Amino acid sequence: MFVIGSGGKHLEDELRELGGETIKVELGKFPDGEKYVRVLGSGNEATVVSSTFAPQDEKIVELLLIGDALREKGFERLRAVVPYFAYSRQDRVTKEGEPVSVRAIMKALGLYYDELYVFDIHNPKTLRYFPAKAVNVSPARAIAGYFREKLGDGIVLAPDKGALERARAVAEELGLEYSHFEKRRISPTEVEMRPVDVDVTGKNVLIVDDIISTGGTMIKAAKILKKLGAEKIFVGVTHGVFAEGAIERVSQAVNELAVTNTIPTPVSKISVVPEILKL
Amino acid sequence: MFVIGSGGKHLEDELRELGGETIKVELGKFPDGEKYVRVLGSGNEATVVSSTFAPQDEKIVELLLIGDALREKGFERLRAVVPYFAYSRQDRVTKEGEPVSVRAIMKALGLYYDELYVFDIHNPKTLRYFPAKAVNVSPARAIAGYFREKLGDGIVLAPDKGALERARAVAEELGLEYSHFEKRRISPTEVEMRPVDVDVTGKNVLIVDDIISTGGTMIKAAKILKKLGAEKIFVGVTHGVFAEGAIERVSQAVNELAVTNTIPTPVSKISVVPEILKL
Repeated sequence: MFVIGSGGKHLEDELRELGGETIKVELGKFPDGEKYVRVLGSGNEATVVSSTFAPQDEKIVELLLIGDALREKGFERLRAVVPYFAYSRQDRVTKEGEPVSVRAIMKALGLYYDELYVFDIHNPKTLRYFPAKAVNVSPARAIAGYFREKLGDGIVLAPDKGALERARAVAEELGLEYSHFEKRRISPTEVEMRPVDVDVTGKNVLIVDDIISTGGTMIKAAKILKKLGAEKIFVGVTHGVFAEGAIERVSQAVNELAVTNTIPTPVSKISVVPEILKL
Repeated sequence: MFVIGSGGKHLEDELRELGGETIKVELGKFPDGEKYVRVLGSGNEATVVSSTFAPQDEKIVELLLIGDALREKGFERLRAVVPYFAYSRQDRVTKEGEPVSVRAIMKALGLYYDELYVFDIHNPKTLRYFPAKAVNVSPARAIAGYFREKLGDGIVLAPDKGALERARAVAEELGLEYSHFEKRRISPTEVEMRPVDVDVTGKNVLIVDDIISTGGTMIKAAKILKKLGAEKIFVGVTHGVFAEGAIERVSQAVNELAVTNTIPTPVSKISVVPEILKL
């Protein structure tokens, strides 16, 4: 049985259409801004679905309140499906004195949930901060499915070596070649970015990544691919954390931009709901 | 050493003037809305001060991030001073399916803090949800001090029996009489509210309570006291969670309205900082 939080409302209709049973939940706010939660069903096991896009902190606290309400009602086994996990990029101390923010949120959710499922988290190693079973779900099949026909016998590229595993997963679904961009200093002031060991001439290219915000890297990559004679250029990203104007800028630079619906955006054309139903 | 969170900024100057040493903290937000925290000092023990008024959830998450940063820096003993504790009125299940919200927040703070200090929490029994030492600090001395001269040989009243303990604490600081209002049904449609076992004729009266929001009860109480011949009427409340227009409406109905600075408002004339320094 699914319990849909504020960050899962945009997934609810499809979840039901595909056969997911949901428990009725009242979600609201008191006049002073405090969240109000009420869970109307009962049972033993529940899967709470809520993505933690902005306002992130409200959705995080709501997940705690829903967990508390379900425990109070006697639910014994609680799973949290958090398609986009807020603070996942704060996965290390970059400057002394910073927190590992993702750790704090994982620990807090661990107070109420026995299992955590997230999609394509920025750094999968951070799942160890969750005190119980935590699973990183790949959206590779969904992204591959969306681009299969458009891409033809194209190439899948990661914008950097760190994202190579994501490109590999999508490419293997499609039976295609994959590689990544690398940065190379070509003069004291210039850095060149180019795809490694792969010829994109006359080929369609899909660039994949976990998060897109300003889209700067994608726009740069697209320019280089065009210069190298690539045919059509597609961008397929898991989480669309778009900065102001980024959707328009990236859309103009490539043939098509599509992200999954872990965050609802105008280009969230790829659904992760079928994957949620398989968990 | 004090670490001041977003909900403690309004207390920082006074805290320092009265001799409190503070550690430098950077607080901010990333473009996507996630909180950024950086603690610049180091040591073994720290007291984090942050009141959780609106936006409550942001301040709650920030307290977790500050806690994580301090633990990461090797601080071994962390105290949280949360003068106004959000969700403290959600202290029981009123309708089936609701959470005990205050429990969820207490448990979350318990992940990082060894001691919790709150001022005049709505239901002191909820402190048991904090997994370690939790203390309810009374603002009675501060409120009594502010009204001592204005009140003279007046009377301290609680708006209902549940708040009597608060009235007693303030009255004892002042060496004055105290009592409470009670509601009595005088016809099928009318409820009369009146002070119990006390004669307010010609006396100044101070009404005290933990939280004021719409101020409806206070305005009603003031009307009754005037009708009964009370002299000056004062309202002294701990937490000013004012609804739109409430400050003006209450101020017009009484001789003076003053709340403490657990929440910064235009009438937060009573400081709890001296009490914080004594913890």
